[in-house]
Amino acid sequence: MLQLYFFPMACSLSSRIALLEAGIEAQYHLAHIWTKRLVDDGGDFREVSPKGAVPVLVLENGERLTESAAVLQYIADLKPEARLAPRPGDIDRYRLQEWLSFVGAEIHKAFLFPTFWYKDDGSLAKPRVRIMQTLSVPAAHLAGREFLVGDAFTVADAHLTWTLLLLRPAGIDIAQWPALAAYLERMQARPAVKEAIGIEMALRKTVAA
Amino acid sequence: MLQLYFFPMACSLSSRIALLEAGIEAQYHLAHIWTKRLVDDGGDFREVSPKGAVPVLVLENGERLTESAAVLQYIADLKPEARLAPRPGDIDRYRLQEWLSFVGAEIHKAFLFPTFWYKDDGSLAKPRVRIMQTLSVPAAHLAGREFLVGDAFTVADAHLTWTLLLLRPAGIDIAQWPALAAYLERMQARPAVKEAIGIEMALRKTVAA
Repeated sequence: MLQLYFFPMACSLSSRIALLEAGIEAQYHLAHIWTKRLVDDGGDFREVSPKGAVPVLVLENGERLTESAAVLQYIADLKPEARLAPRPGDIDRYRLQEWLSFVGAEIHKAFLFPTFWYKDDGSLAKPRVRIMQTLSVPAAHLAGREFLVGDAFTVADAHLTWTLLLLRPAGIDIAQWPALAAYLERMQARPAVKEAIGIEMALRKTVAA
Repeated sequence: MLQLYFFPMACSLSSRIALLEAGIEAQYHLAHIWTKRLVDDGGDFREVSPKGAVPVLVLENGERLTESAAVLQYIADLKPEARLAPRPGDIDRYRLQEWLSFVGAEIHKAFLFPTFWYKDDGSLAKPRVRIMQTLSVPAAHLAGREFLVGDAFTVADAHLTWTLLLLRPAGIDIAQWPALAAYLERMQARPAVKEAIGIEMALRKTVAA
């Protein structure tokens, strides 16, 4: 069985959403991303992955895969019938990769990461200016579209949904972009997304920040 | 013919390396990433791509693809015989995506980007501490390996090579990681990599910073 190392409401949420959307059973292990301890047994998360970052997906053969862009595509390809990613070779597969990169680099790494890891204002001023321009890109794209890629929910939507959920705790009001606010509402209405968020919001309360 | 919008020695260098390694002819357009002007005709780069960021690859059908992770995989898949990416479905394809994400998010976006875009020290202190841990990941991986993925040069190597070239102007001495220094030397000895760097270093002198 697949195993996913996660921290509640961190970027590994999109991998949980993908697993639930695909109907793939997995074991979940809570790894504390600040202390680097495993909640299961107090072990050292860096022994699971030297990066000490979530998500880590342990494959059936024991290999460990990291980085949301790779983990999400791996999960999607396990269940092609769930259509969580366009087929390899299809131009939309590159569109999926384009969005996974943009969400991972521009929204997560360039904004959410400094916001939640760096506590001094000096590190935050520039990312806060820049995120406004960044968010206008998916907002323009989603005006009149239901999903990021093609006409169905993909793992790129799982990843964007996670970043949009974190905008409010990061101090950004999503209501500025009606297309993004409506999109997030649609995504949150999906049973698998709702279930994933419910599980992780409950677990989030059990771990110290 | 494919067209690539680039800025000399910016992250679009890895796309140029991939095109040269694959032996794919392309038209190159210099887009000034600070002024957002096109050097060809003074046009507005944001009309080519609202992101105003390189690389932008214009496909044969006129569609525009952005984000290095997507552009590099697209180029690699155009010439499977050049083996610049493992075949879709191969576990190494996910390893390639894992490295493209890590290089793009952790080295480029979390370190090089703030270093070259944010001029105040407050924005730079934390990324400078963090990059030391970040670089230890590829350094450990490349100790005893010739390439990032499998046993051949891939577009992930093109992307890592670009980030390593920028460490020195970013004030980081790569000699601290002998495996990375030796890797960069090997990569720079490849004819296509040497040619790409030669072209862009010459062009870099023609544009104001």
